[in-house]
Amino acid sequence: MVKINKNYLKLQENYLFSTIAKKVSDFQKINPDKKVIKLGIGDVTLPIIPVVVKAMKQAVEEMGEKETFKGYGPEQGYDFLREKIVEWDYQKRGIPMEKEEIFVSDGAKCDTGNFQELLDINNTVAITDPVYPVYLDSNVMAGRTGGFNRETQKFDRVVYMPVTEKNGFVPELPKEKVDLIYLCLPNNPTGTVLSKEKLKKWVDYAKEKEALILFDAAYEAFITEENIPHSIYEIEGAKEVAIEFKSFSKTAGFTGVRCAYTVVPKEIQMGGVSLNTLWNRRQCTKFNGVPYITQRGAEAIYTEEGQKQIKENIEYYRENAKIIREGLEKAGYTVFGGINAPYIWLKVPEQLTSWEFFDKLLEEKNIVGTPGSGFGPSGEGYFRLTAFGSRESTIEAMQRLK
Amino acid sequence: MVKINKNYLKLQENYLFSTIAKKVSDFQKINPDKKVIKLGIGDVTLPIIPVVVKAMKQAVEEMGEKETFKGYGPEQGYDFLREKIVEWDYQKRGIPMEKEEIFVSDGAKCDTGNFQELLDINNTVAITDPVYPVYLDSNVMAGRTGGFNRETQKFDRVVYMPVTEKNGFVPELPKEKVDLIYLCLPNNPTGTVLSKEKLKKWVDYAKEKEALILFDAAYEAFITEENIPHSIYEIEGAKEVAIEFKSFSKTAGFTGVRCAYTVVPKEIQMGGVSLNTLWNRRQCTKFNGVPYITQRGAEAIYTEEGQKQIKENIEYYRENAKIIREGLEKAGYTVFGGINAPYIWLKVPEQLTSWEFFDKLLEEKNIVGTPGSGFGPSGEGYFRLTAFGSRESTIEAMQRLK
Repeated sequence: MVKINKNYLKLQENYLFSTIAKKVSDFQKINPDKKVIKLGIGDVTLPIIPVVVKAMKQAVEEMGEKETFKGYGPEQGYDFLREKIVEWDYQKRGIPMEKEEIFVSDGAKCDTGNFQELLDINNTVAITDPVYPVYLDSNVMAGRTGGFNRETQKFDRVVYMPVTEKNGFVPELPKEKVDLIYLCLPNNPTGTVLSKEKLKKWVDYAKEKEALILFDAAYEAFITEENIPHSIYEIEGAKEVAIEFKSFSKTAGFTGVRCAYTVVPKEIQMGGVSLNTLWNRRQCTKFNGVPYITQRGAEAIYTEEGQKQIKENIEYYRENAKIIREGLEKAGYTVFGGINAPYIWLKVPEQLTSWEFFDKLLEEKNIVGTPGSGFGPSGEGYFRLTAFGSRESTIEAMQRLK
Repeated sequence: MVKINKNYLKLQENYLFSTIAKKVSDFQKINPDKKVIKLGIGDVTLPIIPVVVKAMKQAVEEMGEKETFKGYGPEQGYDFLREKIVEWDYQKRGIPMEKEEIFVSDGAKCDTGNFQELLDINNTVAITDPVYPVYLDSNVMAGRTGGFNRETQKFDRVVYMPVTEKNGFVPELPKEKVDLIYLCLPNNPTGTVLSKEKLKKWVDYAKEKEALILFDAAYEAFITEENIPHSIYEIEGAKEVAIEFKSFSKTAGFTGVRCAYTVVPKEIQMGGVSLNTLWNRRQCTKFNGVPYITQRGAEAIYTEEGQKQIKENIEYYRENAKIIREGLEKAGYTVFGGINAPYIWLKVPEQLTSWEFFDKLLEEKNIVGTPGSGFGPSGEGYFRLTAFGSRESTIEAMQRLK
């Protein structure tokens, strides 16, 4: 008799953003006349930039002609894109990188979710709390987390590293023995960052403990301040202990286009086995590469004109973040993030839980945000708003909150 | 100290098609003047059909305009595509289907590789031998197969169901207790099919044993004969015991476009848990949907004009299959498949192994095929050629083989 993977039954609820989508859709069914402003899921609203549109249209045409048609591409991504990534995202920042270390994929969500497959089931996982739910959920599914404790709202075998107002949202190095450390910087959902000096402590710690850092840098394009690393490989020694996940979703508005990449340095060896080789094997077996059309679109970003166009979009979202920060502060809220990140993290009024605040905001102000507790138990009492809305709706949301 | 998933070390060699690609590339480096004809990997050569090109170009334009831009889509696929699949691929064949049972993905390779995640590690896996390597490899990685026995060339815990000339390439129902049964029909690599009556035995067997059938129908568009099911759901009761994987790769030349779908019927319950719900949770957590542009392309196939255009392409490949079959027979080979499938399965001359024949064919005739042993131990002594080449190169290959 076939049996299911029982680890799935340990998952606590529906995927956070599906739950929110359902709540919003139910609300709209009952209140079809209300104009709901969505600042919940981190989805962009500006269209794809012109250089990408042009490149993708041309790629579609190529696919329609016998002479230029492309069938299966390399599972790791086309060289034309891997080479541009190496040059623009690493070599220009003085970071040595080879194209064989870059694996193009259809999303950082997929890669951060799948990467744990390469690692033993008995490794101990450390995550910041709160954090993007995929790191935890994918480890729950794999059976790496133990059971769920209803009282603490935590999984038994996971090391939670709280990031709250108390510690300025800077996680402490774990005292427990940990093997896999997920870091998301700039952080989703808190919007906070670590300086080079602070991030170096994590790299040194990982080297000392022989741990692996899974570094999600999906929001690096939003960094404005100096001395904040855009890549973990700006830190000496990081190529021996860290995998880096990057995405075009927020950088270039690719949430619906689907392109990202993961860096697996050749330096990372475990008992004589190269993680780069293992990930390559995984991708060749379970993945068939990103569409040619998409990769030509991503390539177009790596031009002077492409960089100019995406920077304009990011500036637009940054201005939204500023409007939200200032609007919330004026309305009397305590606010974090929103400077080096597209996320604004606010404290909810004391008598409410995060989900109660979600419901109240949806019902009374018709604004959708994300409850902090959805990102982990230490997120309780906080709430996330995103800067990815349109300018008009962002301004209107702040007017409604006044 | 972080440890790797040791199951990866049980994998026997590189992914089959990567090994072939490397051999061919090495040969071409030494022999840049030789014109190599590739009938190895099952990759199509005809361009994307005009209705798809038109739909995708329009979708790219929509992505470039604020009013029509699409961000994150549903992880399960857009309704516009799921509804077309239900109507054209199922309802038109008299098979009841709901759109919530259809999960659009970026490839049947990914889905056939990932689906086992939902199932317990102690389930026993049965595969036909030979077969498409992804079923076995993904189960090796997950730790479901036991160790590899060098003598038998088999994994200890896997039930191999030989399909050879002896049994007419029709697998026997396993005598051992099995839980997961992978069937690929029309078969890759042998090109054989099962009649409705024969497939019904498998469905009945799965019901009786409470096993799950993972049915890969990626090549159904190549079926020419009557009474051969295009979907396992043509068999009564199959919706209670079978998952079906379908792909646009071969049907519509989408190998480089990347779109497929998996059917997870709501009827399949295991201990009160719905597999449809679990797969939905898996996809929502580890996948972010197929690009909007791609889905609009796939949608365009489901029109009268789209069907006409893809049928022309399939006819072209069918004619290639005929040319290969007849060419090989004339050259004195024993040949199977190639009637309801794009694959031709031939017996290699007696004194050679499959890989020796591969090398000989590459070196002497500059033709690339796929060694049968790459698909499993019972594939030794056989060799696969595909009908996806161009007409000219297919004809030339047969002339070289005369």
